[in-house]
Amino acid sequence: MSPDSAPSDTTPTDAESACFEAGIKFGSLYHQFAGTPISPESVSSLTTAMEQSIENQPHCSDVTVDVRTNELETALADSSADYTELTGRFLEVEIVVDYEGCEVVTRMEMQDGYPLMRLESVRS
Amino acid sequence: MSPDSAPSDTTPTDAESACFEAGIKFGSLYHQFAGTPISPESVSSLTTAMEQSIENQPHCSDVTVDVRTNELETALADSSADYTELTGRFLEVEIVVDYEGCEVVTRMEMQDGYPLMRLESVRS
Amino acid sequence: MSPDSAPSDTTPTDAESACFEAGIKFGSLYHQFAGTPISPESVSSLTTAMEQSIENQPHCSDVTVDVRTNELETALADSSADYTELTGRFLEVEIVVDYEGCEVVTRMEMQDGYPLMRLESVRS
Amino acid sequence: MSPDSAPSDTTPTDAESACFEAGIKFGSLYHQFAGTPISPESVSSLTTAMEQSIENQPHCSDVTVDVRTNELETALADSSADYTELTGRFLEVEIVVDYEGCEVVTRMEMQDGYPLMRLESVRS
Repeated sequence: MSPDSAPSDTTPTDAESACFEAGIKFGSLYHQFAGTPISPESVSSLTTAMEQSIENQPHCSDVTVDVRTNELETALADSSADYTELTGRFLEVEIVVDYEGCEVVTRMEMQDGYPLMRLESVRS
Repeated sequence: MSPDSAPSDTTPTDAESACFEAGIKFGSLYHQFAGTPISPESVSSLTTAMEQSIENQPHCSDVTVDVRTNELETALADSSADYTELTGRFLEVEIVVDYEGCEVVTRMEMQDGYPLMRLESVRS
Repeated sequence: MSPDSAPSDTTPTDAESACFEAGIKFGSLYHQFAGTPISPESVSSLTTAMEQSIENQPHCSDVTVDVRTNELETALADSSADYTELTGRFLEVEIVVDYEGCEVVTRMEMQDGYPLMRLESVRS
Repeated sequence: MSPDSAPSDTTPTDAESACFEAGIKFGSLYHQFAGTPISPESVSSLTTAMEQSIENQPHCSDVTVDVRTNELETALADSSADYTELTGRFLEVEIVVDYEGCEVVTRMEMQDGYPLMRLESVRS
């Protein structure tokens, strides 16, 4: 192996860096806001704040947060309280990252009771 | 002292319970949102979300969150980034709790570089 | 009413301040750590960190965090994942605050599906 | 272009998915624990909890959290309090993710006053 071939073996590509950046945004969004008190009345202000705060992060071109209001109302109907805590069960999120011209689209949805975050597309 | 006087010695009054509730709201607000990415553009959505989410909590009649924008702009002028993280340095908060007719007003402001939370008034 | 009697009407007592401080600790503990990934293997390190970090706060003399492991195991048995997120359902917490000689004991336990924080005793 | 070539253009590779997973862990670790009260006495329990909680997440093979104690002591010497809040200034973190045989090493360190998270190597 030539001395200078080693680095290129493991040096991240722009697409890989874009995916890393997208993951950071998802982990940030989820763990910053999980646990926030939420009711039907405060859904709109919370989703706007989530979108705008994470869009501050580098290379983050778009964040869309939807709260599954049916699921929220079901949770509240079962409860003695009129609010609950934000958790993945109530969320659908799309985040678009643009890193050095590489666009990555990622999404979080419930799957088998677990809020699954996944890469949807990577466009170099 | 009579045997049955002991419980009443340590049973909380409504005013004490109101103060406890007010403290919960302050600790919740601070530790839920500390660390959120913030820029001048996202101040408004974040403060609205902070107010409305904490107002969901029981006995919480009013939450007012102000971001000290001068302090935020100073922090950003010193930085290579165009956003920073929310911390007590940027916040002034007033929370009013009403518990069984007892109104408690509480406030957080910076004092000696520390975000001091304090009881302002307790009205039974 | 004399002009100078007004302040004393609403100035907090030491016991009320102690209760406010106790509430801050509870709100902080809950909203700092809610959402943390947890499994039976990481229970011990997380509870120790929760106790020691909140004990750093002013006037906080003791924090005891217990995870209801039966409840945790039930949640994991229902799930495709081998960890879950920390929430009030899994917690029992006692916090003791000492403020100017006034000792307040507070506790969080599940009640009717809601993690209820309450004042247990106030000793002036 | 053949009809079935389109998907492969934007379908993520295993290496890209591994980088996405690594980003999730970093964002999670940072935004879950930023704001935690920290003192020299509680450093050890907090770093252990951060490591073990994030290692619960899927595909996460190793997390190493170091607190820069010099920086922490400097911050405390400037303060009237004997604790402060965890923020990137005090942290050095390495996270290793293994996804479908692809190993990604990532690191967070302060750079120009900003806690920079970066991909160090991607080994397919």
